[in-house]
Amino acid sequence: MNAVATFADIAPVAEHGWSLDAWSSQGLARVEQALDRWVTAEVPMGLDHGAPAQLVAAMRYAVLDGGKRLRPLLVLAAHEAVCAHAGEATRDAALRAACAVELIHAYSLVHDDMPCMDNDVLRRGKPTVHVQFGEASALLAGDALQALAFELLTPQDGTVAPATQARLCALLARAAGSAGMAGGQAIDLASVGRPLTESQLREMHQLKTGALLQASVMMGAHCAQPGIQVAQALQSYGSAIGLAFQVVDDILDVTADSTTLGKTAGKDAENNKPTYVSLMGLQASRAYAQNLLRQALGALDGSGMVHTQALRALADMVVNRVS
Amino acid sequence: MNAVATFADIAPVAEHGWSLDAWSSQGLARVEQALDRWVTAEVPMGLDHGAPAQLVAAMRYAVLDGGKRLRPLLVLAAHEAVCAHAGEATRDAALRAACAVELIHAYSLVHDDMPCMDNDVLRRGKPTVHVQFGEASALLAGDALQALAFELLTPQDGTVAPATQARLCALLARAAGSAGMAGGQAIDLASVGRPLTESQLREMHQLKTGALLQASVMMGAHCAQPGIQVAQALQSYGSAIGLAFQVVDDILDVTADSTTLGKTAGKDAENNKPTYVSLMGLQASRAYAQNLLRQALGALDGSGMVHTQALRALADMVVNRVS
Repeated sequence: MNAVATFADIAPVAEHGWSLDAWSSQGLARVEQALDRWVTAEVPMGLDHGAPAQLVAAMRYAVLDGGKRLRPLLVLAAHEAVCAHAGEATRDAALRAACAVELIHAYSLVHDDMPCMDNDVLRRGKPTVHVQFGEASALLAGDALQALAFELLTPQDGTVAPATQARLCALLARAAGSAGMAGGQAIDLASVGRPLTESQLREMHQLKTGALLQASVMMGAHCAQPGIQVAQALQSYGSAIGLAFQVVDDILDVTADSTTLGKTAGKDAENNKPTYVSLMGLQASRAYAQNLLRQALGALDGSGMVHTQALRALADMVVNRVS
Repeated sequence: MNAVATFADIAPVAEHGWSLDAWSSQGLARVEQALDRWVTAEVPMGLDHGAPAQLVAAMRYAVLDGGKRLRPLLVLAAHEAVCAHAGEATRDAALRAACAVELIHAYSLVHDDMPCMDNDVLRRGKPTVHVQFGEASALLAGDALQALAFELLTPQDGTVAPATQARLCALLARAAGSAGMAGGQAIDLASVGRPLTESQLREMHQLKTGALLQASVMMGAHCAQPGIQVAQALQSYGSAIGLAFQVVDDILDVTADSTTLGKTAGKDAENNKPTYVSLMGLQASRAYAQNLLRQALGALDGSGMVHTQALRALADMVVNRVS
C-alpha cells in the first residue's frame, strides 16, 4: 500500500490548487518514515538492553505498510488547521502524536483479531498477527505497541515541550482506556446477539471507534494552543466523523467484498452483531452518514479557522470511501 | 490481604524507632484507597461516557485487595529518600506514580496468566481474571489497565507539574514496553525448554521484572528533583533489587508451596523454564541474592541521602521474603 493508491478512488477536493492526494502523500511519507524509525529494537533511555528481535518483528508487521492511516492524517490536519503558518515549532509534536494514535489503533486490531475476541485470520489482505507469529506473541506485541505510543509522546530530547507531552498523554490515555476504545470493545463483546437501541449502538461506537478518532483531532490541535472556540469546533467535528466512520464501516461490511476491504466482509451479520444497517436499514444508514458529514463540515464553518481544507477533505473521505 | 499481614514474617528494621511495618501500613493505606478510587467507571475528561461496568469489574478484580504492592512501596520510599522533609508538594505525584506502576504490574499478570501465555488458573489465592471473567474480558481489562496507568500520571487538575507528568510517563512507558517488561516476557516465552547462559538469563529478567522495579524507584525519585549523584545511586539500587527479586522468585518456586505463594508453585521446573536455581543450584542462588542485597545497600551508602530506611528495609524484604 502507498499513499497515492489509498486515495485513488476518492475525488480530490480542489481548493486554490490544493488536493487531498498531494497533501496526504506528503503527510503519509513523513508518518511511514517515522513509524519505520520508531518501531525498532533500539535501546531507549535508561535501559541497558534493546527489545528482542522476535517481538519487534511482530510489532513492525502489525504497524508498517498497512492501513489508511486515517488517524495520523487527522492529527496532522487538525494541527495544520490550528497552527496555520506558525506550525514549524510544533511539527515534531504533531508527527509523534500522529504515530502514537496509529500505534494504539494498530495494537487494538492485533488484540481484536485474536481467537478469544473476533478470531479473524485476515487483516489488510495479510494473515493477522496471531496467525503469523502465534497468540502469545500477538498479545505481547499489542501490549508493547500501547507502551510505545506513550514512549513516542515523551521524547527526552527537547523537541516537544513537557506540557505538550503531558497533555498528549492525557488525551491518548483517556481515549484508549476503559471509558474509550477498550470500553467500547467490551460493550461490543457483550452485545453480540443482543438487540440494541440506536442510542446504545451510538454509545458503543462512540467509545470503540469515536473516542480515538476524536482524540486524533484533539491531539493534533493540542500540539499547538487552540483557543476555546477552536477546540469546541474540533470537538464537534471529531465527534461527528467518529460516528460517521462506524456507520460507513457497517455499510461497507454489507456492500463491499473481502478483497476490496482487505478483511473478511459480512462478519457482523454472520456474528449476529448489531449494526447501523441491521438497525435502520441500508438507505437510512447512508442518509445518516451524509448528515454526519454535514455536521462535521458545519462545525468547521463557524470556527474562525482558515486552513481547514484537509479536515474537510478527510471528513468527505471518511463518509464517501469505498473500503 | 492487608498491609500488616504482608510483612508479618519479616523482621522490621528498627532505626531510631522507625519500623517497616508501621511505614508500609501507612503507605499502603493511601495506595489501596487511591486504587479503589481511581479504578472506577467515572467519566473522564473530554469523553461523554463512563466505562462499562463489566470491564471495570474485571479491572478492579485484577487490581484491588491483592499483591504485596512492592512497586508502589518502592515509589514511595524513593520519593521519601529524595525529598526528605520537603516532599509535601510532590506527594500527589508520588501517590499517582505508585498506583500507575501497580496498574502496569497488575495488567502484566492478567495477560501473563492467559491460556496463550502461562495458562495459570490461580493468582494470589484466587481464580485468575480469565477464569473468572473469560478470556476476552481479561484481554481487554489488561489493555485498559495499561491505559489507566498513563491516565493516572496525567491529571488535569493542577496537582502534578506538567514536566513531572511527562517525565513519569516517559519512565513508565519505556519500562513497560518492548525494551522492558513486554520484551522480557517475549524472551521468556522463547526460552522455554532452551538452555540459557547466566548472562542471557540475567538479561531476560532485567527486562521482564527488573525494568519495572527499577522504574518504580526512578519514578519515585523523579516526582521530586534528584541530583545526578542521587539518581545514579538509585539506579544502581534499583538494578540490584530488580535482579534479586527474580533470583528469590526462582528460589521460592522450588522451596515454597502453592498456598504460601498464592500461586502455583513448581511451574517453572514443570515447564522446563530456565531459572537461577536450575542454572546455578539452590545454594549458589541464595548466596547470589544476598550479594545483590549488599550491592543495593552499598549503592545507598555513598549517595548522600539521609532518609533511606524504607529503601533499605524494602531491599531486605525483597531478598529475605518467604512468599
